[in-house]
Amino acid sequence: MEHEPGDAGVADLTDRLRRFAEERDWQRFHTPKNLAMALAGEVGELLAELQWLTPEESVAVMADPEHGARVRAEIGDVMIYLTRLADLLGIDLVVAATDKLADAARRYPVERSYGSATKAPADGAE
Amino acid sequence: MEHEPGDAGVADLTDRLRRFAEERDWQRFHTPKNLAMALAGEVGELLAELQWLTPEESVAVMADPEHGARVRAEIGDVMIYLTRLADLLGIDLVVAATDKLADAARRYPVERSYGSATKAPADGAE
Amino acid sequence: MEHEPGDAGVADLTDRLRRFAEERDWQRFHTPKNLAMALAGEVGELLAELQWLTPEESVAVMADPEHGARVRAEIGDVMIYLTRLADLLGIDLVVAATDKLADAARRYPVERSYGSATKAPADGAE
Amino acid sequence: MEHEPGDAGVADLTDRLRRFAEERDWQRFHTPKNLAMALAGEVGELLAELQWLTPEESVAVMADPEHGARVRAEIGDVMIYLTRLADLLGIDLVVAATDKLADAARRYPVERSYGSATKAPADGAE
Repeated sequence: MEHEPGDAGVADLTDRLRRFAEERDWQRFHTPKNLAMALAGEVGELLAELQWLTPEESVAVMADPEHGARVRAEIGDVMIYLTRLADLLGIDLVVAATDKLADAARRYPVERSYGSATKAPADGAE
Repeated sequence: MEHEPGDAGVADLTDRLRRFAEERDWQRFHTPKNLAMALAGEVGELLAELQWLTPEESVAVMADPEHGARVRAEIGDVMIYLTRLADLLGIDLVVAATDKLADAARRYPVERSYGSATKAPADGAE
Repeated sequence: MEHEPGDAGVADLTDRLRRFAEERDWQRFHTPKNLAMALAGEVGELLAELQWLTPEESVAVMADPEHGARVRAEIGDVMIYLTRLADLLGIDLVVAATDKLADAARRYPVERSYGSATKAPADGAE
Repeated sequence: MEHEPGDAGVADLTDRLRRFAEERDWQRFHTPKNLAMALAGEVGELLAELQWLTPEESVAVMADPEHGARVRAEIGDVMIYLTRLADLLGIDLVVAATDKLADAARRYPVERSYGSATKAPADGAE
């Protein structure tokens, strides 16, 4: 398999974030509790970018260069804190997500879930 | 560069999530607006796992197998929705995070930021 | 002015929540930091109830007795933690909100803001 | 019972917020879905004010006039959106919270819950 953009990237990003914190002596602020709060704060900023849009407008948000750049920046911030938090906890983000996806495949079999949103809210996993 | 665990993973996870949604005809629910809400909902569940812990207890949360498993599952759910949202918006998670980290390096030069949390809250980027 | 349902209620609710925590010796868990996390966790559960609905469907959510009851319960939980947090901080919820509304009235004068959502996202205050 | 500061306030605040939206023709943006997102966005800003503090520092946050004013302003914003959302849904905030508190009293009897945080996270209600 060839490298796609972003591949080989989570491990590298993890290292960069660790060095960034160490250089500034910020490790003591970076407890899982604090980082989870920071993650939630960034997700709040992302929501603020989308809150007044209709779902249809949200689909086209990247077509507006200025608004799209703000959304991309918030997504970047969310990924920063999520990656840093996973590093602190010793969790592999992609493996944890893949495991949860396997769970979701069991709980939402295609034949029972086709086209139905009423299943999805039950557990929150996609 | 050798593959680390999780490497080559975001692109692959993105593909799996896309297929998962297509097989269930869930694409119409997966607008950026809706996915951002689902992301925030999962982050809320993650916070609930950490809310009564002291910061010190949160550092050791993975040492408790049951609590650790719940935290890992919530991190997995957060990564699922973040990856799916980035796919919908055409954003590369790792590149977006790396760009924001470069911004943060400019805004928080080591000499001015060393050991100081008072700088960090200003913009929210790590 | 006559009492409306809910009036005279915030002060009374504040007292009840304080007693509830004292009776269980939960005050030491109720730091502002922890309560803010609990508040965010409950808001996450509220979002999860609305995430797959269209905005139009969300307008009618209370017409479904079961779904409406879940939304009402989440709103109740959010109000519980917000009231408890405000008590800990010595903040009067209604006065704080009224002050921010006065700010918003200055920042969003009617003649410039009429019908425009592009103003509203700027600061987040309604 | 005498009026305390803030009493008789939720109903009055509800009316003011309704007029504020009507004068600006913002009702069409104020669906429950959108308002829940705005509420979560403001809670995110509140978390950002507390994320790097220790729990002990968070107890004293109001003693710093500048930081305290920012926390108070965020609490005000959260209350604004929560009140507006409850109005749209026809929910009485104080009654909904009081009902949930009665539930919590049943689920967390004093004798079983005294001093124990392990019960509290189970359901999220205080």
